[in-house]
Amino acid sequence: MLAEIITIGDEILIGQIVDTNSAFIATELNKIGVSVFQITSVQDDRSHILKAFSDAEKRAEIIIITGGLGPTKDDITKRTLCEYLNDKLVEDKQVLAHIEELFKNYISTPISDVNRHQALVPSKAQVLHNAYGTAPGMWMSNEKATFISLPGVPFEMKNLINNAVIPKIAATFHRPHIYHKTIMTYGLGESAIAAIIEDWEENLPSFVKLAYLPNLGKVRLRLTAKGPDKNLIEEAVKTEAAKLYSIIGNIIYGEEEDG
Amino acid sequence: MLAEIITIGDEILIGQIVDTNSAFIATELNKIGVSVFQITSVQDDRSHILKAFSDAEKRAEIIIITGGLGPTKDDITKRTLCEYLNDKLVEDKQVLAHIEELFKNYISTPISDVNRHQALVPSKAQVLHNAYGTAPGMWMSNEKATFISLPGVPFEMKNLINNAVIPKIAATFHRPHIYHKTIMTYGLGESAIAAIIEDWEENLPSFVKLAYLPNLGKVRLRLTAKGPDKNLIEEAVKTEAAKLYSIIGNIIYGEEEDG
Repeated sequence: MLAEIITIGDEILIGQIVDTNSAFIATELNKIGVSVFQITSVQDDRSHILKAFSDAEKRAEIIIITGGLGPTKDDITKRTLCEYLNDKLVEDKQVLAHIEELFKNYISTPISDVNRHQALVPSKAQVLHNAYGTAPGMWMSNEKATFISLPGVPFEMKNLINNAVIPKIAATFHRPHIYHKTIMTYGLGESAIAAIIEDWEENLPSFVKLAYLPNLGKVRLRLTAKGPDKNLIEEAVKTEAAKLYSIIGNIIYGEEEDG
Repeated sequence: MLAEIITIGDEILIGQIVDTNSAFIATELNKIGVSVFQITSVQDDRSHILKAFSDAEKRAEIIIITGGLGPTKDDITKRTLCEYLNDKLVEDKQVLAHIEELFKNYISTPISDVNRHQALVPSKAQVLHNAYGTAPGMWMSNEKATFISLPGVPFEMKNLINNAVIPKIAATFHRPHIYHKTIMTYGLGESAIAAIIEDWEENLPSFVKLAYLPNLGKVRLRLTAKGPDKNLIEEAVKTEAAKLYSIIGNIIYGEEEDG
């Protein structure tokens, strides 16, 4: 089960903001066995977004989009998604009521037509309730992929991922299990470790992958296994980790687990 | 003049690290008039990287790649770049001397063949000296694009960008000027501001773009102009900013400039 993340916004491409959303989304998807194949950051530009959608749906079944849902002119994700999926925008009464409620309770300026336009959603979209903002999340499918569009503001996005997107993906798609274990080492460089564990690494089961994550004198070794049988993949990773302790136990100072 | 950034590494796609390299590179490129069209994060996988190279060179003249240059098995950027550009790896004597020097002075483990292999570079590559690490930067061109490959470790990458890549791009390519000015506002939401400045926004010169960057009660308005005449674009942005002060001066509390 593959997903892709598309982040939309010129501010990312001029380096004004770091895209922290993608790492959060990738982490949460991994926990439920969905692998992120590619992350793409594109401009606030209709044709660029259309191309990104079309490329992504050739590679992945789930496409999560953040950004470009605000009320102003630089925000075009919703219109472009609608165009891409041959749909039209219709007013969602619940979203409108929520926007009016937010304005009444928390926002000092009067509600405008621009704000009310945020209640327009593609007619085929399932709305994901954004408790903390005026831009709704949207879940739409065509025959190839499911497109999930979320606001780019991190606390709104995180709330939607945790409370709407992840549970809905878990309920909708059949997914393999993924299990990670990261072994932290200190005192030997990446290449010295690689030379010592070469035989072990070459004999890993095909569904177990190793990655080296070096950083200032420390090297983290991440074991990842993926497959339909949760117990099998966890056991395989634990068995391989145990072998690693017997080979380089003297430089291991800890581990992280993520089942 | 368009660039793209490709970051390579499974650790990005499982969310284990946030890609901070891209924002740094994008910022530095923007300062010399190079716009980043797209940022793509791909896996440590030969065919995925090849596809990313081929897609990127259809859109941009400069492709900056980070990651996948370390000494271990998960590091395949160099080999894939070589394959993509129909080249072969040859030993670079200066890089080898540098690696041996680093090991002699700073690294307690003995140098291995794996370390020495880092001195292999594509025969057509111009080597960019990485003072702080064993993986050299590389600059290679085909008829469509220039590929610049850098290590993913942030302090090594930053040193190479500032001291090798940016000066070399500036000396090699003819570039337009880019000028940004960001106006910081407080007290009105994005959509309220948009409604007030709508007429002004619609009458902006075509080479001046506006972006809204909202964040917890504050909204930054970024004006960006691009063109061959430095004075003209700076004047245009300053003129438009001055108009903005006359319309919403009451909510402006500061600005940032980046010429």
